[in-house]
Amino acid sequence: MIVILKQKASQEEVAKLTKQLEAKGVIVNPVIGTEKSILGLVGDTTKIDPSSIEANGIVERVMKVQEPFKKANRMFHPEPTIVDVNGVKIGGNKIAMIAGPCSVESEEQITDIAKEVKDIGANFLRGGAFKPRTSPYAFQGLKYEGLELLKKARENTGLPIVTELMSPYDIETFVENVDVIQVGARNMQNFDLLKELGKIDKPILLKRGLSATIEEWLMSAEYIMAGGNENVILCERGIRTFETYTRNTLDLSAIPAVKKLSHLPVVVDPSHSAGKYWMVEPLAKAAIAVGADGLIIEVHNDPANALCDGPQSIKPNKFAKLMEELKVIAAAVGREI
Amino acid sequence: MIVILKQKASQEEVAKLTKQLEAKGVIVNPVIGTEKSILGLVGDTTKIDPSSIEANGIVERVMKVQEPFKKANRMFHPEPTIVDVNGVKIGGNKIAMIAGPCSVESEEQITDIAKEVKDIGANFLRGGAFKPRTSPYAFQGLKYEGLELLKKARENTGLPIVTELMSPYDIETFVENVDVIQVGARNMQNFDLLKELGKIDKPILLKRGLSATIEEWLMSAEYIMAGGNENVILCERGIRTFETYTRNTLDLSAIPAVKKLSHLPVVVDPSHSAGKYWMVEPLAKAAIAVGADGLIIEVHNDPANALCDGPQSIKPNKFAKLMEELKVIAAAVGREI
Amino acid sequence: MIVILKQKASQEEVAKLTKQLEAKGVIVNPVIGTEKSILGLVGDTTKIDPSSIEANGIVERVMKVQEPFKKANRMFHPEPTIVDVNGVKIGGNKIAMIAGPCSVESEEQITDIAKEVKDIGANFLRGGAFKPRTSPYAFQGLKYEGLELLKKARENTGLPIVTELMSPYDIETFVENVDVIQVGARNMQNFDLLKELGKIDKPILLKRGLSATIEEWLMSAEYIMAGGNENVILCERGIRTFETYTRNTLDLSAIPAVKKLSHLPVVVDPSHSAGKYWMVEPLAKAAIAVGADGLIIEVHNDPANALCDGPQSIKPNKFAKLMEELKVIAAAVGREI
Amino acid sequence: MIVILKQKASQEEVAKLTKQLEAKGVIVNPVIGTEKSILGLVGDTTKIDPSSIEANGIVERVMKVQEPFKKANRMFHPEPTIVDVNGVKIGGNKIAMIAGPCSVESEEQITDIAKEVKDIGANFLRGGAFKPRTSPYAFQGLKYEGLELLKKARENTGLPIVTELMSPYDIETFVENVDVIQVGARNMQNFDLLKELGKIDKPILLKRGLSATIEEWLMSAEYIMAGGNENVILCERGIRTFETYTRNTLDLSAIPAVKKLSHLPVVVDPSHSAGKYWMVEPLAKAAIAVGADGLIIEVHNDPANALCDGPQSIKPNKFAKLMEELKVIAAAVGREI
Repeated sequence: MIVILKQKASQEEVAKLTKQLEAKGVIVNPVIGTEKSILGLVGDTTKIDPSSIEANGIVERVMKVQEPFKKANRMFHPEPTIVDVNGVKIGGNKIAMIAGPCSVESEEQITDIAKEVKDIGANFLRGGAFKPRTSPYAFQGLKYEGLELLKKARENTGLPIVTELMSPYDIETFVENVDVIQVGARNMQNFDLLKELGKIDKPILLKRGLSATIEEWLMSAEYIMAGGNENVILCERGIRTFETYTRNTLDLSAIPAVKKLSHLPVVVDPSHSAGKYWMVEPLAKAAIAVGADGLIIEVHNDPANALCDGPQSIKPNKFAKLMEELKVIAAAVGREI
Repeated sequence: MIVILKQKASQEEVAKLTKQLEAKGVIVNPVIGTEKSILGLVGDTTKIDPSSIEANGIVERVMKVQEPFKKANRMFHPEPTIVDVNGVKIGGNKIAMIAGPCSVESEEQITDIAKEVKDIGANFLRGGAFKPRTSPYAFQGLKYEGLELLKKARENTGLPIVTELMSPYDIETFVENVDVIQVGARNMQNFDLLKELGKIDKPILLKRGLSATIEEWLMSAEYIMAGGNENVILCERGIRTFETYTRNTLDLSAIPAVKKLSHLPVVVDPSHSAGKYWMVEPLAKAAIAVGADGLIIEVHNDPANALCDGPQSIKPNKFAKLMEELKVIAAAVGREI
Repeated sequence: MIVILKQKASQEEVAKLTKQLEAKGVIVNPVIGTEKSILGLVGDTTKIDPSSIEANGIVERVMKVQEPFKKANRMFHPEPTIVDVNGVKIGGNKIAMIAGPCSVESEEQITDIAKEVKDIGANFLRGGAFKPRTSPYAFQGLKYEGLELLKKARENTGLPIVTELMSPYDIETFVENVDVIQVGARNMQNFDLLKELGKIDKPILLKRGLSATIEEWLMSAEYIMAGGNENVILCERGIRTFETYTRNTLDLSAIPAVKKLSHLPVVVDPSHSAGKYWMVEPLAKAAIAVGADGLIIEVHNDPANALCDGPQSIKPNKFAKLMEELKVIAAAVGREI
Repeated sequence: MIVILKQKASQEEVAKLTKQLEAKGVIVNPVIGTEKSILGLVGDTTKIDPSSIEANGIVERVMKVQEPFKKANRMFHPEPTIVDVNGVKIGGNKIAMIAGPCSVESEEQITDIAKEVKDIGANFLRGGAFKPRTSPYAFQGLKYEGLELLKKARENTGLPIVTELMSPYDIETFVENVDVIQVGARNMQNFDLLKELGKIDKPILLKRGLSATIEEWLMSAEYIMAGGNENVILCERGIRTFETYTRNTLDLSAIPAVKKLSHLPVVVDPSHSAGKYWMVEPLAKAAIAVGADGLIIEVHNDPANALCDGPQSIKPNKFAKLMEELKVIAAAVGREI
C-alpha cells in the first residue's frame, strides 16, 4: 500500500502517522520526493482500510499495490479450481454447457426443454423459479412450484439444476433441492445473502453485477469463500455502458483478466448480455475462444410465447447446430465440449 | 407502446400479431410506412412486457411511450408527496437535514455527534449499524448493539433515526426501533427486500443504485408502493461513470428529472458521491439550488479515526458553518432549512 | 419517426403541428391514446431533425424508427462491401491481418518488423508516424520522416501501409504515400476531417470513438460516404467504461451488430483495447470467432524499449504462434487467414 | 511515480531496471515487500511515459503520484487565472454570463437575441457559425456568413463573441474576427488543432469531451498552454453515462475538482448537458452554487423554429427571470453577476 502525503505535511505529522501505521503491523518505508513524498507500506495490508488512512489530514490519497482478495487470489492458489457438481465438473478442460429456459413455465415446458438440451449435449439445466424483474407487475416466476418442476425435469434427464435464489429465507430449500445456486447480477453485492451462502457448501454461480468492476466481483466471491464455501463459479453476463443497441456490453476481456487474478472457474452468459437471439451464436463462439469454462444459454421451445426473455432465447434446433459449431471452436483452443 | 415491424412481415403475420395484442386488452393502430411499418398500441400497456412482443419473429423492436411506473408517477398524482416521520416532514417547503456518522462506533461517539448536529439544526440522525462493505474483512458495523446506541442518541436528542437495513430477517426489529429505514444503493434491486418493505408502513429512504437509470430507480420505488407502503423518499448518491477522481458522479440533473416524473420527495447525499470531505460543501449547496428536498451529510467528531468513510466526513464545526451557508441558498430558491 | 404528444395538447395545436410536418414531405398518422397520443410519420424522415420537432411546446419527445444512416445502411445495400487495397481485400471470406509497431521509430525497426510480419503472413503493415498522445510532452511520432520510413518498409515487403492522419493539412501527402488512411478514435467525430476524407477515394479505416455508440460510429462513416468515398473500413478498439483493469472494454458484440446494420467491413484492434500484451491472444481469437473481417495487432521487436504502447505489443515469435492458432479459429468459423 | 514489480523479478533484473530509470534523471527508492516490491521514483517524472516502464517484463504496473500536467497545475500556480477578453473578465469574483442561440440563422435573429441578452445582463454573445452535427444531413451552420452576422451583432451590442472553430484552416479568420474561440467536446482531443491554438494568444474555451476524465481535460488544456497560449477557459458540458433521460450527465463535482487541481477558470453549459429547456434553470443555479466562474446558456427568440437545439433553448423572457434568480444565488456564495 502506498500513502501519498500532502506537500505541507510536517516531519512531526509524518512521524505520528508512521507510528499509527506501524501499530497496524506493517513496516513503513518513506520515499521523500521533491514535490510529493510517499510512504510505502510493507506487510499484510489486506486488513487496513485505505479510506481510514485517507481521512488523515496530511494524506492526499492511498493506492493499493496488492489485490484486496485472498482466498480468490491466484497468487496464493496457483492451481485452477474445479467445482464438482455431483460428478459434473466446471473449470477443467471440458467446457460446461448450461442450457434451459429463462423461467420455468409448466411441467411440460421444462421437461421437454430439459430432454432436448440433454440430448443435444448440455451438462446442466437452467431455469428460473424465482425471477428478479424490474417491474413489480411482470411475471415473478412460479416460485416453489417452479422448483418442484425443475426437480421433475432433473429426474427425467439426470441433468443437475442451476437456478436463482433471491431471498435468504429460501436457502435451506435451495440446499435441499437444487444443484447450483445462482446469485443474480442485482444481488452481487447483497452482502447479507453472500454471507449466508458462505455457510453452506453448495456450489454458487455468482453473476457479475451490472456495473461491478472485476475487483468488486472477486470481492463478492471472497465474501462467500471467507465464510467457508469455496465452490464459487463466476459468471460474466454483460456490463452497463452508454451503448443501447445491445442490452448490456459483454465484457469478454474480463475472462482472461479473471483467469489471471483468480483460480475460480468463469462461465459466460451470451443470452442476457446481448438481449438478442441472433447474437447468441457469435458471442458464444467468442466466449469459448477467449477462454471461458462454460456457457449459459437460454433455450426455449416457443420463444414467441415465453413468459420472459423470449427475444434472447434460441430454439432447440438452433442450440443443436450451435453445439456442433462450438465443439469445433473448443477443439481449436485445445478444449472439449 | 409502439411495435416496429420487420420489413418482411406479411399481412397474415401482422393480422395474427394484431389479434394477439388485442387479446391483451389494447387497441392496435397500424401505421404503414414505406420502409418500416409500426403498430401503435392504445390502452393500459403497463402490464404488457415489451420483450414478450419483441420475441415475435416479425417484430424488430418495441418502444415504450408511457412510463412503466404507476403509483410513483406524477401524471396520476400531481401533488408532491410529503412523508411525515413522527411529525418531521420530508418533501415540503422545509428542507430536511439528515446528519451523523457513517457508522455507529460507541455510545459516546453517537450521542455526542447527535447532540451536536441537533444543536446545529439537523432534523434527523443518520448512523450505520449494519454496514455494507465491499470487503468481508472490513468493519461490518456494531449491528444490534448499534441500533441500541442509536436509540439512546434519539432519547437524548429527540432526533428521528435513519439507518440501513441489509436483511429481510431484521425488518421487524427495524420497524420497532428506527424511524426511517434506508435501502442502500447495492440493494436497490434486491426485489425480495423491496417486496417485504411494501408490507410495512415505515418510511423508506431508497438510495439510487450505482448504475441505476432514473426509470429503474422509480420502478424500485414502485415495488415498495405496489405492496402498499407509499412512504418512499428517494436519495441520489452518485452514479458510476468512467471518472475516477471522484468516488461517484453526483447526478444533480436527476433531481429535476425525478420531480417531473414523480411526486416522491428526493434527497441528496453529497458525502458518498464525492468521497472527499472538501467537496461536501459545494455539492450540498448545489443540491439545494437544484431543488433537493433534503440532504444526508456525514458528520464525525474525529474523521481521522472513524471506522469508515473518514475521508468524506466533516467535523461538527464545519457542519455548523455549512448549515448557515445552506440557509442562504435555501432562501435564494424560496425554501427554508 | 414517432412524435409523442403531451397530454395537454389541444386539437388545434395538433392540427397545426401536423401541417408543419406534412410540409416536410411526410405523411402523418395520428394514434390517439387514452393518456398519451402519438403521431406516426411515414416517408423519408432522414432529413428531419428530431430535436427541431421536440422544441415544439406540445411535443413530449420524438423517437426514431429508422436508422439515420443511408449509405452505410445494410437495408439499402444488402451485399457486404469488400474494400480493395491495391488488390488486397478487406471484407470477404479472407481475414485481413494488419500488423506492426505502435509507432515508426527508425528505418531498421520498421523494416525489420515489416519483414517479419510479412513472413509470418500479415497482409498489411501498420505503424504510426503522427501519434495522438494524451500528453504534449510524450513522443509525438517521427511525422513526415516516419511516412518515408513506412514507404521504404513497403518497398521491401510489398505490404500496403496503414497509418493515422491527424490533420487535414496532410491529406494530400497521405493520399500520395499511404494505402489506408486511419482516423483515430479521438477524431471519430472530427467532422471537418471526415468531410475532407469524403472527397478522396483512398480507403479509410475509421476507429470507433472512445464512447461512441454504434449508431454514431456509423454516422461518422456516413459523413465520409456522403462525400463520395465509400471505401470505409470500421475498426472496433474498445470503449470507455467504469472498468479500470483493462484500458478499454473491447465491445465484441458490436461486430455482429455492425454486420446486421451495415454492409461495411469491420476489423478489431485487440492491442489497444486491453492495453496488456497477454490479452492480445485470447481477444484476437474471440474477435475472429465473433465474425470480424480483420485484426490490427501491435507487433514490436523490442517492446521494453518501444517509444509507445510497449505494454500491449507482442514480439514477432508470439505473433507467429498466434497466426497459427488464429488460422484454426478462422477455419472453425468457415473463413481463412 | 511508483513501479510495482512482479514477484518473480530477480535482483539482477531489478538492478538493471533501476539503472535504466536513473538514466532518465530520477532517483529510485526500492521498497521491498513480502509479496510485492515497489520502486519509488523521485524527481521530475512528467516526461517519463508510464507505459514505457510497464512494457518491462518484470514490471506489473506503474502508478502515477503526481499529476501529468504542469502549466495547468494549481500546485505551481496557486493564484487563480483570470482571462481578460477585451476588458471583460472570466475567473474573478464576477460570474461571466455567455448567452445566445445554438446557431446563427439570420442577421435579424442574431442581432435581436444579442440585444435582448445584452439588455438582460449577459457579458458575452454565443452563437454557432460552424456546427458539429452527428448527421451529415443536418444543418451545418452558416459558416463564414455566420461569422459576419456575429460581428454585426457585436457592433450593435458591444458584446464579445464566443463561437466554435472546427478546422485549423480557419484559425486565422477566427483570430481576426472572434473574441473567444470555442473548442467543442468532440474536438477536445483533436491534438493537432490544440497545438495550433497554442501558437496564438486568443482566449480558448475548451469544452470537456463526452467521456473525458478531468485529467485528460486538463491535459488538453496543457497542450494549448504548452504551446504558449495560457488563456484557457474550461467548460463542463455533461458527460456520457448509461442514463438516457438526460442527453448527458452534468458533472458538477468536476467544478470543485478542477478548482483544486488547476488555476484555470471553469464555466458550465447547462443547456447542452440536459438537452431539455426546463432543466436549464435548476442546473444553472446549481452550477453557480457549486462554484462555476460562468455559464453558457442557449437563448433563442423562437425555439420551436430554431435550426438546432430548440428543445434546450430558453426564450429571452425566461432568461431575464433566470438572471434575477441567479443574482441571488451568486450573492449567497459571495459572488456577483
